[in-house]
Amino acid sequence: MTKISKVAIVMGSISDLDVVKPCLKTLDDFGISFEARVISAHRTPNEAHDFAVTAKQRGVEVIIGVAGKAAHLAGVLAAFTTLPVIALPISTKLMGGLDSLLSMVQMPKGVPVATVAVDGADNAGILAAQILGLKYPEIAARLEAFKKDMALKVTGDDKELQARLEENRK
Amino acid sequence: MTKISKVAIVMGSISDLDVVKPCLKTLDDFGISFEARVISAHRTPNEAHDFAVTAKQRGVEVIIGVAGKAAHLAGVLAAFTTLPVIALPISTKLMGGLDSLLSMVQMPKGVPVATVAVDGADNAGILAAQILGLKYPEIAARLEAFKKDMALKVTGDDKELQARLEENRK
Amino acid sequence: MTKISKVAIVMGSISDLDVVKPCLKTLDDFGISFEARVISAHRTPNEAHDFAVTAKQRGVEVIIGVAGKAAHLAGVLAAFTTLPVIALPISTKLMGGLDSLLSMVQMPKGVPVATVAVDGADNAGILAAQILGLKYPEIAARLEAFKKDMALKVTGDDKELQARLEENRK
Amino acid sequence: MTKISKVAIVMGSISDLDVVKPCLKTLDDFGISFEARVISAHRTPNEAHDFAVTAKQRGVEVIIGVAGKAAHLAGVLAAFTTLPVIALPISTKLMGGLDSLLSMVQMPKGVPVATVAVDGADNAGILAAQILGLKYPEIAARLEAFKKDMALKVTGDDKELQARLEENRK
Amino acid sequence: MTKISKVAIVMGSISDLDVVKPCLKTLDDFGISFEARVISAHRTPNEAHDFAVTAKQRGVEVIIGVAGKAAHLAGVLAAFTTLPVIALPISTKLMGGLDSLLSMVQMPKGVPVATVAVDGADNAGILAAQILGLKYPEIAARLEAFKKDMALKVTGDDKELQARLEENRK
Amino acid sequence: MTKISKVAIVMGSISDLDVVKPCLKTLDDFGISFEARVISAHRTPNEAHDFAVTAKQRGVEVIIGVAGKAAHLAGVLAAFTTLPVIALPISTKLMGGLDSLLSMVQMPKGVPVATVAVDGADNAGILAAQILGLKYPEIAARLEAFKKDMALKVTGDDKELQARLEENRK
Amino acid sequence: MTKISKVAIVMGSISDLDVVKPCLKTLDDFGISFEARVISAHRTPNEAHDFAVTAKQRGVEVIIGVAGKAAHLAGVLAAFTTLPVIALPISTKLMGGLDSLLSMVQMPKGVPVATVAVDGADNAGILAAQILGLKYPEIAARLEAFKKDMALKVTGDDKELQARLEENRK
Amino acid sequence: MTKISKVAIVMGSISDLDVVKPCLKTLDDFGISFEARVISAHRTPNEAHDFAVTAKQRGVEVIIGVAGKAAHLAGVLAAFTTLPVIALPISTKLMGGLDSLLSMVQMPKGVPVATVAVDGADNAGILAAQILGLKYPEIAARLEAFKKDMALKVTGDDKELQARLEENRK
Repeated sequence: MTKISKVAIVMGSISDLDVVKPCLKTLDDFGISFEARVISAHRTPNEAHDFAVTAKQRGVEVIIGVAGKAAHLAGVLAAFTTLPVIALPISTKLMGGLDSLLSMVQMPKGVPVATVAVDGADNAGILAAQILGLKYPEIAARLEAFKKDMALKVTGDDKELQARLEENRK
Repeated sequence: MTKISKVAIVMGSISDLDVVKPCLKTLDDFGISFEARVISAHRTPNEAHDFAVTAKQRGVEVIIGVAGKAAHLAGVLAAFTTLPVIALPISTKLMGGLDSLLSMVQMPKGVPVATVAVDGADNAGILAAQILGLKYPEIAARLEAFKKDMALKVTGDDKELQARLEENRK
Repeated sequence: MTKISKVAIVMGSISDLDVVKPCLKTLDDFGISFEARVISAHRTPNEAHDFAVTAKQRGVEVIIGVAGKAAHLAGVLAAFTTLPVIALPISTKLMGGLDSLLSMVQMPKGVPVATVAVDGADNAGILAAQILGLKYPEIAARLEAFKKDMALKVTGDDKELQARLEENRK
Repeated sequence: MTKISKVAIVMGSISDLDVVKPCLKTLDDFGISFEARVISAHRTPNEAHDFAVTAKQRGVEVIIGVAGKAAHLAGVLAAFTTLPVIALPISTKLMGGLDSLLSMVQMPKGVPVATVAVDGADNAGILAAQILGLKYPEIAARLEAFKKDMALKVTGDDKELQARLEENRK
Repeated sequence: MTKISKVAIVMGSISDLDVVKPCLKTLDDFGISFEARVISAHRTPNEAHDFAVTAKQRGVEVIIGVAGKAAHLAGVLAAFTTLPVIALPISTKLMGGLDSLLSMVQMPKGVPVATVAVDGADNAGILAAQILGLKYPEIAARLEAFKKDMALKVTGDDKELQARLEENRK
Repeated sequence: MTKISKVAIVMGSISDLDVVKPCLKTLDDFGISFEARVISAHRTPNEAHDFAVTAKQRGVEVIIGVAGKAAHLAGVLAAFTTLPVIALPISTKLMGGLDSLLSMVQMPKGVPVATVAVDGADNAGILAAQILGLKYPEIAARLEAFKKDMALKVTGDDKELQARLEENRK
Repeated sequence: MTKISKVAIVMGSISDLDVVKPCLKTLDDFGISFEARVISAHRTPNEAHDFAVTAKQRGVEVIIGVAGKAAHLAGVLAAFTTLPVIALPISTKLMGGLDSLLSMVQMPKGVPVATVAVDGADNAGILAAQILGLKYPEIAARLEAFKKDMALKVTGDDKELQARLEENRK
Repeated sequence: MTKISKVAIVMGSISDLDVVKPCLKTLDDFGISFEARVISAHRTPNEAHDFAVTAKQRGVEVIIGVAGKAAHLAGVLAAFTTLPVIALPISTKLMGGLDSLLSMVQMPKGVPVATVAVDGADNAGILAAQILGLKYPEIAARLEAFKKDMALKVTGDDKELQARLEENRK
């Protein structure tokens, strides 16, 4: 499978990598190449700026910003680019990530980010694929296949449940 | 300005139209043609199904689902399509729309929606434009212009503030 | 005890089974036969549709929808049937299931679901029994007996407490 | 339309009547007779007890408890009966009724109430109809008709929207 | 130390005993005799009624109601007595006990309960002592002593901190 | 009716007076004399100290602390006295008074306050009466009468509801 | 009174000016000169950068960042300077400003902002004065005077309350 | 490195020391001397008073108040001094410290505290350094160096991430 397009995943701290990994795997599975970076909106703001303003010319088409607490990273990147920015809020001790979620999703008029579920790394990757699927038919096709596989997996789980219930009834 | 591409805005109730209007205007301003529909995930679920499964063949490239309270509409549409679905939560009396927001953003693995701010209709439109901008250079160009205008407006407001403060100091 | 009536428990994921088990046991104890299914509102929406529209003709009288996070399952089933649908929200990391609860209980006008406590699987089963008890006197009788047993258990716990306190006073 | 069955609506205060009225109208529309009472779990607890223990012998089949804030009424009634009890939480100043909602829905093991949306009086009535529809085919038939009407209304709203958009495009 | 007065602690479930123990110990330390009971507002409502209406004639002067989730116990007892009722909310998985807290503290006009912190069993005991101290000078005297001891303990902790910091500086 | 005992109501700001008035009226109705003060925990902390340490010798038996937002007043008074302190949280724009409520009720071990509902001024007065009723039989007797009146009022409201429903049925 | 020092107030939108005005007045009253700017973290991020990196050389000693919703402004400014940054969250429809508050206060390790109450513009100004008071004895002296005036005002309110109560008693 | 200036850290309980330690270390690293105290707003209020009113004459320039739950400590200290007071809320079981946060940040007009993130002990120390940096150029210089080190650490983490990704790709 040839890699097409380019997604950039930017996380605020290397400690976010464990939460982010399913996103990287998802992109890989969809044949989407990516760059992954540790850039902090607050600790390396110049890198955030440089990254965002040059993203388009480097061929990046979708940016995923990953952060927790006062999670400004996605919004800061969105401020410097017109590329679509996906916001992935990380769960925290304070209300399970509600702080991260509200810091990301409540963006002011003019600078949206596309927010997914708290810790929803897979979904950040799939949303990137859906966006790229508009332009790249191969990705759109893989999404159709993925959707079918996903349904099959649920159907398989349903069969397993029936088997287990049958077992219990004996 | 020739209209390109096609966005579908689906609202759960015609009473959402006032909140949705800035989204329609935004799409118009970006030269994006749209269809707007009233379809309820709970009251006309078959229409929701039919709408979503046929969206792609009708040329729809981005779907915007608008709903409040137990706001399932965006998720229900996302279940039937691999197109990117933007979720626009509507404010409510119960915690100002937190119910709508959580019902939308916390989608399970495999079926993301791209959630924007509560009542963030403009941003839903702009996010749609950003997604389409990857494929349609004209839209990307308009986004760059929009971003500059937006900055100019803030700079203008700053000038107005200086004038007002100057006035007060006299 | 002959099984009467039929309840359908639909869970969004097989991983919900551990939370659901007390519900199955409760139905069993009340002599209510059930079918249990894994169907996802988002991953197998067609199965959800088919399940709900055929439920009545299969003899199902009460449906229990079990889901977490953006918990649409109960609402999606309720959209396709006029049978009473009980919603069982599953606890999550984000505010302990408040997201699941709000996604279920805040249903729009016209399509109610009967929501029970977060992770309240026993109560979902008992509520189903109470609903069926209107039609099936045997179930109503078992509910009366259950209520008495429940009171006896608390009275027993009270006696145990008195014994323990007596012990401590010596 | 002959009235069948009997629902009891109990509100904690006569000031809840305005919120409750759509529930009474809904029951009327479904041809369900009802008794409505003002009984306070905290101010007239003996009446609450007497009402609940005699409800079944008076022919009541479903109870709807309506209350706000520390909303114990539905739970208190459920403690004294095995009839299904629907809980209708009333919105309040403290977090828009989240206090009422949590006081109702989080019932302990053994004594469920069927909670509907905050201020969801229509839905309390419809849920009562759905429960009674299991036993009374006429009510089930009216629910099917209601569901179709509801869908037609949404379809009508969609047509109105198309007309308005058409108008704007001219 | 002769025991004076009588406090009644009522918990909704024997599983609350571990949280309640510091309350019992506190009462003991203040020389207040108590009765402790397991009575459930929902599972043994008649016992709750009987307990509350006879409390005063049994010599009970303060009641402490302990419960979690839809925590009605304190309110139900308060409905049947004019004795002061202290409400002790128990922590839960859903928002750390906020459900218990709101179910207790938001009592309607006319029937207050005196709510203390979530899991604040010591404070429930101390508040009972403060209330009884108005009538029983011995208890008031013990409270004064307790307040001094408490201050001494903090002063002691402060000294320990200084010692530790001194240690570190070496 | 001769006034007995003495309650002190301390409010953080004279703007709280409107919320507090029902409390003053309630005390009056129960024949309890009171002093009311404007003292701010943060703006006149020395007055708060002086007030609290001298309260007992002035004959005050119960203190009611009224405050909003970071509502420290009740806790600050409780720090300086062993008298029972009732905390009355005032509603605010931030989550309807949840900030006031949490600032009051979550007191640390050793220094409880007896918290009533947000804006629950009547209940603060009634709770004070219940506490004083232990010592003053006249107040206890008035509480019994109050409880009966309250029940009669609800019964009267119920009769009015029946009359209105009867009217509608004609 | 000669103006000393320099505070910079940066608001995200000119519509915040009404909320900000008490802050400007407070600074004026303390004899602190200020510059006020409209700069948006998301719409004019380059201005935000330029403003923050040059603030110190322009003589600014304290920065106040004012913003609502996903309120990144204070954090973005703090990223580019080592000056103390005060964060003033603006109230919003979503939970009364809790979104703004959490977006500001939950800053990551290394880049603090000094957060004051939602809409607490006066306090932002007073906190700036307190910080500057360490360096400028005149400001420290004015703070002492302010604190006394504030206490006098509360004492005056207390006197007014006594007068009003006296009036009522007649 | 000669120690300059003086910060006072006051914690409500010695059990807070573990959370506070990074703050002490941060101050040490910035060459700021400190005194640390255990003083409880509620259990040793006189010590709190004495500490605050004498702080300035002891040479204290910034106070850090550390507390959890109904976290009054910072506010109580601020009531007695015009020095800047930093509030460090400690996480709790009830909503992860939201109770502590709201008890601290929502201070009334006239008496601000500078609130940092829940459990944000490092940031409390850094904010103190930023405030002192206005007066002490050495501290300002150390803050500049700290900011650069912090950026370097993030850049280092980014390099490590690239290495790990490279490794995986092999």
